[in-house]
Amino acid sequence: MALRDPNRRIVGWDASHDANELALRRNCIDEVQPLAEVCKADIVFVAVPPLLTIATLEKMRPHLGPTTVVTDTASVKAEIATWANAEKFAQLVPGHPMAGHEKAGANYASPWMFRGATWILTPARFTDRKAIKTVEEWVQATGANPVRVDAETHDEHVAILSHLPHILASALVMQADSLQNPDVGGGSWRDLTRVAGAEPDLWLQILKGNRPAVLKAIEGLQSQLQTFESALKSGDDTALLQVLQRAREAKLKQSPEPKRPITGVPAKKSGRSKNS
Amino acid sequence: MALRDPNRRIVGWDASHDANELALRRNCIDEVQPLAEVCKADIVFVAVPPLLTIATLEKMRPHLGPTTVVTDTASVKAEIATWANAEKFAQLVPGHPMAGHEKAGANYASPWMFRGATWILTPARFTDRKAIKTVEEWVQATGANPVRVDAETHDEHVAILSHLPHILASALVMQADSLQNPDVGGGSWRDLTRVAGAEPDLWLQILKGNRPAVLKAIEGLQSQLQTFESALKSGDDTALLQVLQRAREAKLKQSPEPKRPITGVPAKKSGRSKNS
Repeated sequence: MALRDPNRRIVGWDASHDANELALRRNCIDEVQPLAEVCKADIVFVAVPPLLTIATLEKMRPHLGPTTVVTDTASVKAEIATWANAEKFAQLVPGHPMAGHEKAGANYASPWMFRGATWILTPARFTDRKAIKTVEEWVQATGANPVRVDAETHDEHVAILSHLPHILASALVMQADSLQNPDVGGGSWRDLTRVAGAEPDLWLQILKGNRPAVLKAIEGLQSQLQTFESALKSGDDTALLQVLQRAREAKLKQSPEPKRPITGVPAKKSGRSKNS
Repeated sequence: MALRDPNRRIVGWDASHDANELALRRNCIDEVQPLAEVCKADIVFVAVPPLLTIATLEKMRPHLGPTTVVTDTASVKAEIATWANAEKFAQLVPGHPMAGHEKAGANYASPWMFRGATWILTPARFTDRKAIKTVEEWVQATGANPVRVDAETHDEHVAILSHLPHILASALVMQADSLQNPDVGGGSWRDLTRVAGAEPDLWLQILKGNRPAVLKAIEGLQSQLQTFESALKSGDDTALLQVLQRAREAKLKQSPEPKRPITGVPAKKSGRSKNS
């Protein structure tokens, strides 16, 4: 939908008949075509359950057009990159758009989803350089920013930035299950638990696929939580304040505050204040 | 700002001259008045750093009008409720709006902040019943939903629903500090870490003020994380899937999904699909 254009023909295929029909009805695609035909396009985006990615790419490969470029969207990359390298699959540029939400299917598709998002590409050693450029251009056309990193770095990053948040959201809602009024939470609670419990089957595949990095991420968080726990238990205000300040520094480094406040009206002479 | 009305006169006082001026400039209040004058209003909202709440209420009490009702906004309630009870402070209805964000001061004030939020009230044994009704009506006028619970239940709830999310957001940004590109995170990462590092001095007071409940909440989360860790370590898919499904059930119980998809266009005869 982000790439819809009157001068572009977008064809699609899904193993599910209903998914094909819905994609047509919602105008995500112009036409449903058999997989072999889809493989002749300028670029093919493969978006299937992570554990089916390699099998799907294997099935597609004999049908690909000579200049067709393929990219996938699986959220774990090391295995695919290794396989693509071993296969010398030059037309494949493995990728992972860091965008999406907790709802699945074309009913929840949106042309805006990729705006401003990071779209990671993890080319392997044998990936064709022109193919990388092509995918980067298409990614930019969706409104996303392509970033190249190696597959291992990617997997370490998403373990902390995506898989751990998902586990946490789920851990939190399970913990709140014992509360009398779990629905009184404010904005930060709603934000934290938004993705909780989304698509268990998909997440089983994701977490399994990135097991070592996810386990390392959980252990890292446990240790950060222990820092808070010790500081709070000790009753030492300075220690607790230091932890909170370290968090503030890390946050400011990662997302600097805007120079001016977002809102605010021009100063005017008030004279109304009895205190001034 | 949520209570602004041409027929209403809203007066305010802050210990900081700049805060008073900014509140006037942004039209949050009609007038700055000395604290003793503010105490004559129909209702007074006390919004000060948590550890100053009781001292501020003590200072205000001699100046209160005979029918004035007072409510505070401190995010930990047991100590205030105990104190109010011991003092037989019938005009005070302790409260806590479950709304707000990571930015402080009138520059970031908004008339919409309380819309749909829960505003908890924790009246003590001696609280005047008419005063409770009055505060509930004003709370409703802001767009929030007043909910009465006892102070201990409140503190246990906010430990999990508010204080723990804050700690987690901070723990996560500290953990991501070692990453090469911590800014590639998607929506769930931005949501989870939004409140990280907000106002260390304020949060020191909040966490200290609710120490036992917060420690219990951290321990509870550590144990939920261990459930994930064990399931993932064991390599037992069924165990991991069960944990993910339990999270889904908890989430659906806490915030049921809408009956119909949010988006979607009416079905039409397509005839364009070669597969159909």
